[in-house]
Amino acid sequence: MTVSPILTAVRSRTPLVHCMTNTVVPQITANVLLAVGAAPAMIDLPEEAEIFAGVASALLINVGNGSAEQHRAMRLAAAAAEREGTPWVLDPVAVGALPVRTQLARDLLAHRPAAIRANASEILGLAGASAGGRGVDATDTADDALAAGRELSEQTGAVIAISGPVDVVISGGRVTRISGGSPLMPLVIGTGCALGATVAAALGAVSGSGHSAHEAVVAAHALFGAAGSRAAQQTNAPGSFQVAWIDALHTLTPDEVATLVSVEEA
Amino acid sequence: MTVSPILTAVRSRTPLVHCMTNTVVPQITANVLLAVGAAPAMIDLPEEAEIFAGVASALLINVGNGSAEQHRAMRLAAAAAEREGTPWVLDPVAVGALPVRTQLARDLLAHRPAAIRANASEILGLAGASAGGRGVDATDTADDALAAGRELSEQTGAVIAISGPVDVVISGGRVTRISGGSPLMPLVIGTGCALGATVAAALGAVSGSGHSAHEAVVAAHALFGAAGSRAAQQTNAPGSFQVAWIDALHTLTPDEVATLVSVEEA
Amino acid sequence: MTVSPILTAVRSRTPLVHCMTNTVVPQITANVLLAVGAAPAMIDLPEEAEIFAGVASALLINVGNGSAEQHRAMRLAAAAAEREGTPWVLDPVAVGALPVRTQLARDLLAHRPAAIRANASEILGLAGASAGGRGVDATDTADDALAAGRELSEQTGAVIAISGPVDVVISGGRVTRISGGSPLMPLVIGTGCALGATVAAALGAVSGSGHSAHEAVVAAHALFGAAGSRAAQQTNAPGSFQVAWIDALHTLTPDEVATLVSVEEA
Repeated sequence: MTVSPILTAVRSRTPLVHCMTNTVVPQITANVLLAVGAAPAMIDLPEEAEIFAGVASALLINVGNGSAEQHRAMRLAAAAAEREGTPWVLDPVAVGALPVRTQLARDLLAHRPAAIRANASEILGLAGASAGGRGVDATDTADDALAAGRELSEQTGAVIAISGPVDVVISGGRVTRISGGSPLMPLVIGTGCALGATVAAALGAVSGSGHSAHEAVVAAHALFGAAGSRAAQQTNAPGSFQVAWIDALHTLTPDEVATLVSVEEA
Repeated sequence: MTVSPILTAVRSRTPLVHCMTNTVVPQITANVLLAVGAAPAMIDLPEEAEIFAGVASALLINVGNGSAEQHRAMRLAAAAAEREGTPWVLDPVAVGALPVRTQLARDLLAHRPAAIRANASEILGLAGASAGGRGVDATDTADDALAAGRELSEQTGAVIAISGPVDVVISGGRVTRISGGSPLMPLVIGTGCALGATVAAALGAVSGSGHSAHEAVVAAHALFGAAGSRAAQQTNAPGSFQVAWIDALHTLTPDEVATLVSVEEA
Repeated sequence: MTVSPILTAVRSRTPLVHCMTNTVVPQITANVLLAVGAAPAMIDLPEEAEIFAGVASALLINVGNGSAEQHRAMRLAAAAAEREGTPWVLDPVAVGALPVRTQLARDLLAHRPAAIRANASEILGLAGASAGGRGVDATDTADDALAAGRELSEQTGAVIAISGPVDVVISGGRVTRISGGSPLMPLVIGTGCALGATVAAALGAVSGSGHSAHEAVVAAHALFGAAGSRAAQQTNAPGSFQVAWIDALHTLTPDEVATLVSVEEA
């Protein structure tokens, strides 16, 4: 698999990731990006976001809890990213369950995200196929969302990543499953949101290389799962798990990642 | 005491807690809710907050540092919670010391919070009895605020919880004191704010059960104190204390909680 | 050196630090202030910020990622601080690289900050001497910014602190260099921003004493470097480093600080 060279590329190229994310996770998102070797920059003012989306290596737009001002900035930044060729990732948090962000996320699809990372309920919500969940909870399984994910990939051209006990990455007829991680990961807020940011970092790092966007998305998921597996060897409680997991994101070698997760083409 | 079955109910029912909180504590609040077995959702946009307050198991409104847009959303959400019967908790951070939030918190009382959690200075500030403090510091003791707390409970119907070295919970002529915790807790930002969210989780978990709101508020305080006592057995510095405290919130059994704190009716 | 009595003064006087900071770092900033012995209060609403800047022991204005409403509040608070004699610190995050915050930071200089803390690129950006960097990255060295720092100090009367592998503090013809810390510090988000807040705490603590603002700024940098050196003796990964570093900020004695860093007058 191509996980190893992509993780090496993230560390050597230090992609600058413009993050527009929700109010809960900026700190852990930034710490995760630093741990994996990328450089975070949170910029949400409309005037500045529009400029920075054209300068950054990649852009993350996470539509979880934000302000009306930030939503305006997201629309400008997504348009700028499309115009300037900056790869960008959509994380449609709680889309399908809440109206403002659902409309926002669907509108943003027109600006051609390189990847969409979400749980199964959110993929169904984005595709218009779900009655909604309880917000950020995934009440559907990845396989429930497989058909919707395929269709969304065909419509938008984006790589679709569906997070769950087994992560599924879909694009162009290809389906890759990544197993690993730990049940403790959903007990640490922001692990999913920080994965969206790390997908952006990987896309920024492979830009201009021979690696595909699909491979970059898989590599980010493999690193996250491997760090979760490593941390779960050290603790069974969420406070110390978070610390061990961030340590592992920084210290695991690409070869260790390969031994800690399973990556399979369907 | 009824602490044990209520903590078990939080873990088995996974109450969905809609949190509208200040800019400093969303991450620790979410991590604490996940650690205790609840599900957090931070939603501050007016249109979405009004909807979600009617869907969630419980709502927290913490008037610490927020925006004008969030304040509008809080008014809508409190009204929706009252209308839909969602139990909600008011955390009047620095009320009495700062004018905008003081007016906001007093206005919100009309929507009948199920509980109000605060330090003594804030209870006095909410009741209009204090000259204000230095903001979030409690310069008054819980006993200074006892009379104001009783009166506030009678006026609003809310359970009043006053945090301090000994926590005091007041409602309907009943006064319960919870001892435990650690002097390190005030050195970790957000332990008080996360307690407000956990009170909401406990209220959501007992809804429809035979347990009273008073008992739910006491149970949340007992768990917090017990986790503080346990963490203080492991470290004497605030960084590692935070980690150990979140671990303890997750791993303490309800029976262990009973051995680590003292709960007494006055 | 005067580091030891100033750190003791912070712990004994508990200066109340009004923080207006970016969306990424409020939690770590508050935890750091609590760890060093100060009291944090984040207040960003215009009406409340203007009042509180006149009440607090010191004010921090960090122009990293914020909202238009917060920017209005910063202008009011800086004016109030100048009017009421509250010492205040400017942290010009990514100034020079992004237009809105660059204009804001330059405008705020008119309100006479007591100190400006930044990396070299930001000092150059504030002085108008840089073509900008990639945002928060320092692409220039402290020595590149020495002349700009001197000039900025002369123009504004502020103590200028330039963070880097060796920190440089400049004012009134005096140049002090502080060595210590760890390469892991830039891998924990907010260590620089929290240093700005700790500079404010130190300025608040020396107010009315015989110590100069220059000495207060140096003391804050010495404590940060010493805690970084201590934490780096315990771990080589960023998650556990953050925990150990906050522990060290709280537990190091002033005398231990003196053994862990080198403070030299040029």
